[in-house]
Amino acid sequence: MAKKNEKMTGNMLIAQSGGPTVVINQSLVGAVLEAKKHKEIKKIYGALHGIKGILEEDLIDLGRERAANLEAVANTPSSALGSVRKKPTPEDCRAIFEKLQKYGVRYFFYIGGNDSAETTHIINEEAKKMGYELRCFHIPKTVDNDLRENDHTPGWGSAAKFVAQAFMGDDLDNAALPGVKVNVVMGRHAGFLTAASALARTYPGAGPHLIYLPERPFDVQRFADDVAKAYKKYGRCLVAVSEGIVDAKGTPIAAAYTKEVDSHGNVQLSGTGALGDLLAGMIREKANIGRVRADTFGYLQRSFPGLVSEADAREALAAGREAVKLAVAQQPSGSVAIRRKPGKAYRVFFERVDLSRVAKETRHMPAAFIARNGHDVTQAFIDYAAPIVGKLPKIGRLQRVAAKK
Amino acid sequence: MAKKNEKMTGNMLIAQSGGPTVVINQSLVGAVLEAKKHKEIKKIYGALHGIKGILEEDLIDLGRERAANLEAVANTPSSALGSVRKKPTPEDCRAIFEKLQKYGVRYFFYIGGNDSAETTHIINEEAKKMGYELRCFHIPKTVDNDLRENDHTPGWGSAAKFVAQAFMGDDLDNAALPGVKVNVVMGRHAGFLTAASALARTYPGAGPHLIYLPERPFDVQRFADDVAKAYKKYGRCLVAVSEGIVDAKGTPIAAAYTKEVDSHGNVQLSGTGALGDLLAGMIREKANIGRVRADTFGYLQRSFPGLVSEADAREALAAGREAVKLAVAQQPSGSVAIRRKPGKAYRVFFERVDLSRVAKETRHMPAAFIARNGHDVTQAFIDYAAPIVGKLPKIGRLQRVAAKK
Repeated sequence: MAKKNEKMTGNMLIAQSGGPTVVINQSLVGAVLEAKKHKEIKKIYGALHGIKGILEEDLIDLGRERAANLEAVANTPSSALGSVRKKPTPEDCRAIFEKLQKYGVRYFFYIGGNDSAETTHIINEEAKKMGYELRCFHIPKTVDNDLRENDHTPGWGSAAKFVAQAFMGDDLDNAALPGVKVNVVMGRHAGFLTAASALARTYPGAGPHLIYLPERPFDVQRFADDVAKAYKKYGRCLVAVSEGIVDAKGTPIAAAYTKEVDSHGNVQLSGTGALGDLLAGMIREKANIGRVRADTFGYLQRSFPGLVSEADAREALAAGREAVKLAVAQQPSGSVAIRRKPGKAYRVFFERVDLSRVAKETRHMPAAFIARNGHDVTQAFIDYAAPIVGKLPKIGRLQRVAAKK
Repeated sequence: MAKKNEKMTGNMLIAQSGGPTVVINQSLVGAVLEAKKHKEIKKIYGALHGIKGILEEDLIDLGRERAANLEAVANTPSSALGSVRKKPTPEDCRAIFEKLQKYGVRYFFYIGGNDSAETTHIINEEAKKMGYELRCFHIPKTVDNDLRENDHTPGWGSAAKFVAQAFMGDDLDNAALPGVKVNVVMGRHAGFLTAASALARTYPGAGPHLIYLPERPFDVQRFADDVAKAYKKYGRCLVAVSEGIVDAKGTPIAAAYTKEVDSHGNVQLSGTGALGDLLAGMIREKANIGRVRADTFGYLQRSFPGLVSEADAREALAAGREAVKLAVAQQPSGSVAIRRKPGKAYRVFFERVDLSRVAKETRHMPAAFIARNGHDVTQAFIDYAAPIVGKLPKIGRLQRVAAKK
């Protein structure tokens, strides 16, 4: 063990967990590049497919990756180390420590969402119990933007940019061939990603005309009425719906139509068109509108190469660096949180927070971001989201000067 | 009427029809900019929502659009004039001529796919019967790439780029969290857009591992066997499926699961996740694989702003210009076809072809582009597609040097 005032020397291990994002490798590469600067860190191991790679000793030597290659990896979507959805059992934890000891690991970094923070927390608590000196840092990522303690989370900005651009185009598509179009957006418990569709409104009358979030109870009849009303007003209707919408009792609308659950007990919401098709059917039936289409954006939202928010990429890299800095500075184990500085200009900073404050539970859209009518966002949300998402393509529209008859 | 050797003077009318694309406004703007150069063309009218706008006299004066605005519109996805899916009846044709005469229109341009070429053809034939002197030109567009006489069609290159990039990212997503992933791609009768997924293969073992096209009969049991085999080989399986796949009798696999048809008698294939979910269910059941997901790319493929093939944008603009040049040069009515010059370098040229040779029937993937096994494409297809689609994002991957145990 390291003596007081003496920096702990040892190897480091890093892994990725949960759903991929477009910038999750920025955090990986940020951590690796930072680690190379600190003499306290000797070997830099990467575990393939999260804690599964530790258990199976499927480890790689990240210190031997070429710099140019690391840079290319940083700019490539999806978890370069592979991912996993696995919550460790107490037996898993014991086995993990055996491996960490075997490989002389004193610095452990886990990039992921709240489930991954929970895994990091469990490993950290077990390490304490066993008296094994280990710095455990969780590095945030999630397209859902649902991590507590964070102003926003790496991964969301780029996914939000995808959603906003998709809606900008689909709005024009819907205007060209009018009808009702429902787009189902990712977000299990938090509506942030669905809400980002509002950034697509660049001209008066632009869609989405309705936005449904998991934070407000979804009522089928009210939904059909809202759509009918908007369709009457605009001659068409573009709708953004979160995959995680729930009824007044909190039951997911999608739940009756899917069976799969992961090891954290979550119902499968993405990778199926069932919810979109269900909602389209409801509109046809209850609002009596003929041309109704539904698309489910699915995994494209989180892994589309080349569609990156600049701020998101920059912050994801910085979050990886920050975790290593905190660990080497002998700060207690924790999670790196992104905070925003007050004021008009967009500036962020990072802070260490206890793992228990990020793990497990998720955060939701604050009420100030949700319109009173329950099917839109507020200007406060737009102000919050716009600098994180960054520049969007310019939309040109004809002036449409009427011809003389 | 114009005398022999005298150029016909009159107004022009242009409209857009069928499904939008990312570059359909390039063709519109190309035609408008070219028309402004020719003194034979006086007023430049645009009809809103295709022939519907003619029938309802919903016309705008495109000559009064500002140049900067036209440029912005050219770079904006989806039909700026609005679109329609409507086949004119003989009564519609009579009504259309009344309007064309009323507005002094002698040049008519219709941007669209084979259905739109058919509409142009019908109008042209009716004009001849009625002795009304009219130059009718069809300007090609379709993400399906299924127009006869064309090497490829404006709209496809950009949609193909979207599909290729989507598969590049989704392949890495599938590698991170292994399982079976089925992506349903647009293409009613032709597999070109689905085939473009093959451009996503940038490293050995990269997906898509299986590609199913409408040109080859789809057998459910063989499909499940193919997936099981690929899953065993790669530990995962990424599948590209055309929405238009049919069984040995020619019945669309999706047909039993959807009811809507448009006025051209086509079954609704996009804007529903039914086919993807159906195929995912088949894999779970017949191949006994747990983690199976399906995404349907839907309308994002044809309207995503900012995702444009350079060649596609350039050629779409040129096709619009070319149509006007041909019409003003007093060529007989026709369609503008894109041909490719032989040789290694990618070069195209345009030719006038008779409307009847493009209208109605569609073209399919040639056998030389389809692998013998029926579930892949050939190198000949890659060579054909790559220059049209253009540059794709660079994918970085870790070298993964195994850690010493």
